[in-house]
Amino acid sequence: MSDNPPQKQPLRIGVILFPGFQALDAFGPLDVINVLSRTEPITLSLLSSTLTPISTASPDIPSTTGQSILPTHTYATAPPLDVLLVPGGRGSRGSSGPVTEAITFIRTVYPSLKYLITVCTGSGLVARAGVLDGRRATTNKMAFREMRDLRPAVEWVARARWVVDGNVWTSSGVSAGIDVTLAWIGEVWGEEKARGIADWIEYSRHEDKDVDPFAELYGL
Amino acid sequence: MSDNPPQKQPLRIGVILFPGFQALDAFGPLDVINVLSRTEPITLSLLSSTLTPISTASPDIPSTTGQSILPTHTYATAPPLDVLLVPGGRGSRGSSGPVTEAITFIRTVYPSLKYLITVCTGSGLVARAGVLDGRRATTNKMAFREMRDLRPAVEWVARARWVVDGNVWTSSGVSAGIDVTLAWIGEVWGEEKARGIADWIEYSRHEDKDVDPFAELYGL
Repeated sequence: MSDNPPQKQPLRIGVILFPGFQALDAFGPLDVINVLSRTEPITLSLLSSTLTPISTASPDIPSTTGQSILPTHTYATAPPLDVLLVPGGRGSRGSSGPVTEAITFIRTVYPSLKYLITVCTGSGLVARAGVLDGRRATTNKMAFREMRDLRPAVEWVARARWVVDGNVWTSSGVSAGIDVTLAWIGEVWGEEKARGIADWIEYSRHEDKDVDPFAELYGL
Repeated sequence: MSDNPPQKQPLRIGVILFPGFQALDAFGPLDVINVLSRTEPITLSLLSSTLTPISTASPDIPSTTGQSILPTHTYATAPPLDVLLVPGGRGSRGSSGPVTEAITFIRTVYPSLKYLITVCTGSGLVARAGVLDGRRATTNKMAFREMRDLRPAVEWVARARWVVDGNVWTSSGVSAGIDVTLAWIGEVWGEEKARGIADWIEYSRHEDKDVDPFAELYGL
């Protein structure tokens, strides 16, 4: 953040939403960002193909419950961003309009970002955008083999709670999004800030990115 | 659940929303319930005073970020419920319309519930409804003294990740909502189901309700 002027500009964060996103993939990091924004200047955009409310329910899974969230911008009206956060979920698969438009947006916006953060199979969207080719990255552990086959040009890391390669932070499944967001905050604002937020939300963090009990659980 | 007929009826879950609810208080449990609903029959209602989208942003806190969620029912149109989940957050304080209407709804609906679950300062709303008088309960640890003073007739438990008293499950702050929901699922559907969901969301659970690192942190 050394390129910021003394009068700090807000950090401009965007989060991608698509039908069938995993609620906690997005709302773990978002809750952390909401707490962060009580003391740090942040702007947040919730981005999707349209301004229609986006449901966590995926058309192809017989879950009976879901929640609908209001986007603030479409990809066409997205403001300039410093950070993009990409959640995963059942709906990150396939080639529906919302998925292909998310991938196109990620590919287009990545060169102007300071940081790109993924949770769970959100790394699959970013991989399909070509951003992870030749990079180290991780993903949901139950879906690890699926992600590896989706984009073999990525150096997929099986045993990691999260992986940092350059300005790309990829995390493991669902709740790992909380850990990677706190770790990223530690990098940008300092570890004391990250610890304060973790304590505030009474969250027992994974603090070591290389400790991953779920890799073993899923035989990786 | 022994009073259910062999052809299982869906379990009817309601979640209370009000302006300034803490995102993760609601979306930790909701994510767990979404995964549960892939295999178990569940109906979910998101309840508020009106059908207007409800923001996590609280009017009295200078956070710059927030997310807006669509309720599915008002308190006036709420369907019959078996389970009510009450999140907390900055907006659970005071005597605004949405807060007093939530308290009135909790008081009215409680006698017909099988289970009542609270996260964080959601216990304050339930306490003010009179439901916790004479019961053991816990709450957010940073707000513990505030909650104790709010309703001294409750037997507030300082050192607990969550507390079960009869059919009322109260949990500690924010992320503790994930733990109490998983523990409750263990009670209703069995521990294997709870463990499967925790593994699915790659969540390292607090499995012991009496282990609470945050009570000590906040000097309780």
